[in-house]
Amino acid sequence: MPDVLKQPACTTNFLEWQSWIGMQAEIIAVGSELLTPDRIDTNSLFLTQRLNTLGIAVARKTIVGDQHDHVRDAFRCALDRVELVVSSGGLGPTLDDLTREAVAELLGRKLVLNGGVLQGIEARFRKLGRTMPEVNKRQAMVPEGAGLLENSRGTAPGLWLETAGRFIVLLPGPPHELKAMFTDKVEPRLERLAGATRLFYRELRTAGLTESEVEQRTSPIYTQYAQVQTTILAAPGEIQLHLRNWSSDRAEAERVLNEMVERITFALGENVFTTTGQPLEEIVAHELAVNHATVATAESCTGGLLAERLTRIPGSSAYFLGGVVCYSNDLKTAWADVPPEMIEAKGAVSPEVAQALAQGIRRRIGATLGIGITGIAGPSGGSPEKPVGLVYIALADANGVRDRVLRFPSDRERIRWHASQAALDMLRRYFIYARHGKPSWPAAAQS
Amino acid sequence: MPDVLKQPACTTNFLEWQSWIGMQAEIIAVGSELLTPDRIDTNSLFLTQRLNTLGIAVARKTIVGDQHDHVRDAFRCALDRVELVVSSGGLGPTLDDLTREAVAELLGRKLVLNGGVLQGIEARFRKLGRTMPEVNKRQAMVPEGAGLLENSRGTAPGLWLETAGRFIVLLPGPPHELKAMFTDKVEPRLERLAGATRLFYRELRTAGLTESEVEQRTSPIYTQYAQVQTTILAAPGEIQLHLRNWSSDRAEAERVLNEMVERITFALGENVFTTTGQPLEEIVAHELAVNHATVATAESCTGGLLAERLTRIPGSSAYFLGGVVCYSNDLKTAWADVPPEMIEAKGAVSPEVAQALAQGIRRRIGATLGIGITGIAGPSGGSPEKPVGLVYIALADANGVRDRVLRFPSDRERIRWHASQAALDMLRRYFIYARHGKPSWPAAAQS
Repeated sequence: MPDVLKQPACTTNFLEWQSWIGMQAEIIAVGSELLTPDRIDTNSLFLTQRLNTLGIAVARKTIVGDQHDHVRDAFRCALDRVELVVSSGGLGPTLDDLTREAVAELLGRKLVLNGGVLQGIEARFRKLGRTMPEVNKRQAMVPEGAGLLENSRGTAPGLWLETAGRFIVLLPGPPHELKAMFTDKVEPRLERLAGATRLFYRELRTAGLTESEVEQRTSPIYTQYAQVQTTILAAPGEIQLHLRNWSSDRAEAERVLNEMVERITFALGENVFTTTGQPLEEIVAHELAVNHATVATAESCTGGLLAERLTRIPGSSAYFLGGVVCYSNDLKTAWADVPPEMIEAKGAVSPEVAQALAQGIRRRIGATLGIGITGIAGPSGGSPEKPVGLVYIALADANGVRDRVLRFPSDRERIRWHASQAALDMLRRYFIYARHGKPSWPAAAQS
Repeated sequence: MPDVLKQPACTTNFLEWQSWIGMQAEIIAVGSELLTPDRIDTNSLFLTQRLNTLGIAVARKTIVGDQHDHVRDAFRCALDRVELVVSSGGLGPTLDDLTREAVAELLGRKLVLNGGVLQGIEARFRKLGRTMPEVNKRQAMVPEGAGLLENSRGTAPGLWLETAGRFIVLLPGPPHELKAMFTDKVEPRLERLAGATRLFYRELRTAGLTESEVEQRTSPIYTQYAQVQTTILAAPGEIQLHLRNWSSDRAEAERVLNEMVERITFALGENVFTTTGQPLEEIVAHELAVNHATVATAESCTGGLLAERLTRIPGSSAYFLGGVVCYSNDLKTAWADVPPEMIEAKGAVSPEVAQALAQGIRRRIGATLGIGITGIAGPSGGSPEKPVGLVYIALADANGVRDRVLRFPSDRERIRWHASQAALDMLRRYFIYARHGKPSWPAAAQS
């Protein structure tokens, strides 16, 4: 996935809800590699999402290195503030894995070798045909009174500790171990503690509107729902609205969200392509499948990105037969029958060539729809008349062809992404208009 | 860029260097959106990289929401621990932007309206043909004694504060504002404070080896350099070694790094494709360019990903003429002359078809090299004989064709990425062997 979500979020009404939610948690990520420019703590995104679903808000995140006193102090401060502290990392077998030791010292508990855990680790190594290295013994050291969280994906068990009405959950750092353990072993325990508040959630995504257009059209609506935390996120060619409703009354929470979604969708119209957070290629895949339609692509500046996105979806062979990436003019002619005279007269980057690509590839492959893309992704190759960021996209069906011209003021990677997004959005709108029996295709919004 | 770097890092010797480095910093990210599952603080990666270059280590990161007391407490605790605190976010015009207020209160300083800053903000709005909204006045409030850091990209100035020998830098949250301000206004100031220690750096990347192979072959070397912080990071089809040398002696630091790079490169051989952190597609682009070679692609399971990666590089039209994505068997025949009988007899996923794709697309396009990829990306379509994750890749030149069989135990996205990586690596090795005048192509390592 391209790293396309750009900051800043337009965050609207955090202040209101912070005051009335239930249980609060803090997340501590342990690992010196998380304090380098190479690595970022992403476990906390998963943990936050799962905690939120249980009605638990995350009040702070701390990232510390593999140093005993830093780890201990981070836990001490967090326990002063919140009921629940969840950590990731530092449970491995080596000397710099010291979350166990630091927390045991903080709570004044002894570390005791747990025979059952040791046997489990030894068995795991035996199964791989190896003898357990001596260092792994450390992973069987358990603070007195701790609950064990079985690790189905690795050697280090997680730990559950309670102290003075506070809860501490120690999880391993590798994401696949952490996720499985949290889902299977931690959520059932938290479910019992977390009280009646839960998070109810909607994610709308739009294409063809700018962030400020979305903001202008929706702020009169969402500001009427102070209990719902609304966030607007901008990505190239896509604006997202995240609606979070913390409530102990499921029926009422869902009713409010449904009402908001209905009003916002009315305000934004067909620019909304999902209310459940699906990516655009998934929506397009669904449209193609239910309409028993196929698509063929002829790409120039996007270099295969559109084909790649269309085939990300499992089962894409049902609607995607093939595509060509024709960088050279000769290949535009050879593969999509673009007349050389047209390229000569209009230039390779022109609405005519985009149309010819779409029609040519559609006919060649015998697909329901053809898409042609030609443009200048830069950084070089631009001119005053045809600057970097100029892209023509055409969509052809059996009855004709339409094109869009787009201008993206950005770098190569974003121009290519933007163009693929716009092409997918043309496909999506094609089916909406076909469904509504509209006589002609829409003039899609500029992005 | 796909999110392919997988945890955990194999981090080796953080303990040693933590004790002797010079100045330490903490980073505080302010913003309630950073405590949701939607957003992560990425500014700290940039800040860490730049701080490290100045010889300043990052000892901790804290992420807090837009709450006055949370922000104030985060700064108080950080100032108890380190000399330098750098924050991002909370300098905007709205009521939930309260970093200024929280820090001013903590330091016991009054906030004073700064006429110069106010005029600058008003001018910025005038230039956009708008009147400054009243709320933006807050951005001109400056704590007594603070230095102003001009914002060339937005309205909120940054602030530089000193207290009892400690330094506080408040930066805006939007990355493009933060980056410009840090580079232009903060680095020159830190340069004067930071002492003589600097960070010297190398990044080696390898293809064709597993993480444990890299670890085994290099640990006898890097453990001899306790002063160099060595981290091994694993990505699908790529293992990276990051070498960081904190030193006040540039010549000696570079000498040590050069020696390490030489020894590690000798141990890992031609599997190392860069010692300066370049992505594989950039290395392949360079090889193609200097060898005046062109490449054509015929992809099935990767769906255009290989073409997309080859064309990410500016100027790729010099070596990439075109490619096809032939999902259907008919198109494999129509576009790359794969005999239908071959597909019938051997199956679409077979070494024969991979070879035929590579040779066919090469001949059709008239390129120096042709690449063919066919495989099963899943999740469905696998069988006991041809399971999900089985991929054949072939490379053809004027003299013949070679193929590799690969088995990737993973999900659709990673299988596709792995396959594109393996294809790029075949291209890279082709030129190495051509250069060495080897009689036949290498049997590339399995990944």
